[in-house]
Amino acid sequence: MYCYKLLITYDGTAYSGWQVQPNADTIQERLQNVLQVLLHREKVTVIGSGRTDAGVHALGQVAHFKHDQSLDLYRLIVSINGMLPKDIRVKTIEKVPLNFHAQYSAIGKEYHYYLYLDRVMDPFRRLYCWHMHQKLNIELMHQAACLFEGTHDFTSFANESYAGSVSRDPIRTLHYLKIREMEGGIRIEVRGDGFLYKMVRNIVGALVEVASLKLPLLNIPIIFNSKDRREAPNAAPSHGLFLVYVDYPSQIHPKENCPH
Amino acid sequence: MYCYKLLITYDGTAYSGWQVQPNADTIQERLQNVLQVLLHREKVTVIGSGRTDAGVHALGQVAHFKHDQSLDLYRLIVSINGMLPKDIRVKTIEKVPLNFHAQYSAIGKEYHYYLYLDRVMDPFRRLYCWHMHQKLNIELMHQAACLFEGTHDFTSFANESYAGSVSRDPIRTLHYLKIREMEGGIRIEVRGDGFLYKMVRNIVGALVEVASLKLPLLNIPIIFNSKDRREAPNAAPSHGLFLVYVDYPSQIHPKENCPH
Repeated sequence: MYCYKLLITYDGTAYSGWQVQPNADTIQERLQNVLQVLLHREKVTVIGSGRTDAGVHALGQVAHFKHDQSLDLYRLIVSINGMLPKDIRVKTIEKVPLNFHAQYSAIGKEYHYYLYLDRVMDPFRRLYCWHMHQKLNIELMHQAACLFEGTHDFTSFANESYAGSVSRDPIRTLHYLKIREMEGGIRIEVRGDGFLYKMVRNIVGALVEVASLKLPLLNIPIIFNSKDRREAPNAAPSHGLFLVYVDYPSQIHPKENCPH
Repeated sequence: MYCYKLLITYDGTAYSGWQVQPNADTIQERLQNVLQVLLHREKVTVIGSGRTDAGVHALGQVAHFKHDQSLDLYRLIVSINGMLPKDIRVKTIEKVPLNFHAQYSAIGKEYHYYLYLDRVMDPFRRLYCWHMHQKLNIELMHQAACLFEGTHDFTSFANESYAGSVSRDPIRTLHYLKIREMEGGIRIEVRGDGFLYKMVRNIVGALVEVASLKLPLLNIPIIFNSKDRREAPNAAPSHGLFLVYVDYPSQIHPKENCPH
């Protein structure tokens, strides 16, 4: 048996997210269908590092699948990309140890969220940024971002998964949460050891409420302490969010492609 | 009577080009329809600096229309963008002298053409770059580009317009034609006093043939001399092309937004 690790990028605009669902077009299903044809198997299961919601994009989603034959990786990547729609691309494929698991081996993730702040939206970014019409106080947003860094109980910033409330530890550590100015707007970069359901979008929603003076900075600790999702602002829309990087321990899989 | 100058950006993917045509969705028609509603007129004619073909994009298309009333420009731009689809945006509107004409007053244009050269296409650029699978010799492309700069009879690099062969002077001056390397590929920047139909895409097609060693560099002057479109390579596809800037004499309209 062999384990294959895929590095995948996709424009999530046209999909109902990563994870297979009945009557929905998903990235996981597209990949599985292609591999089933190429590998002449009735079922191939492709396991991702985690799901991304409808409309969320990925620059560096990671997934794995197992297969009983040793495959020519160069031919495989060309064949997969030849059969996938053009808004999903497999960037690299590697053979990894059999104990590699795209979800359970992951020790960290990085997401970027794009806010567009100019008055007139750039039509080329309309599907990849949240367009804010109100004026934002970026200095206040920097201050709010600091309140999220470190180890917290993120219950107030996590939605219940629609698969039911799987009881998971709500304690997470954000290694950093930075606001970077770029042409036309800002990019919010967040890196942590793991993320609860909709956690990034809920944090971005709160940062925007603070920066648009709708939520006082000092309410952030109160919202954390409430451990109640209803106390926190609405989630930011999905189309501004990118899964950028998934990190694995070097003993399971040597680090490459790490931007840091 | 007042003359209004529009600076327009659009993602051309979904449109049959700039110019109104029967049974086709065009940018000119979208703008005219919106203005007819907003200005309560049966017909408003929006005249562009020139047409762009189906799939061609614009960062800085210019157009004008005339109207008998003085309009509040801030309200107008908000209203127009509120009614236009999100892949077309009016960036600025200005009142200009009545002798301004978006097409006839133009004294220069700049186009950019994007080639993507990495093995695996970036899904976020799939609609905005031509993906080349063969290896290109960029040094040869630089040399070929020099042969196009300056004043030439561009008959061999111009298609007949489908509106019929309107006899126009085929002598044009390219102020520059530069190849710039960027992440994942190159950008071909071309600036000139005017362009014949499909001229930029035909030039890019020839540059690519030279760089992929299918067309000897020394054949370029022979193709120019033949004055025969059939001697030159095929046009590059439309979706890599962007109209970036249209230049007007400062006495008709003061220069602004000029990137140079």
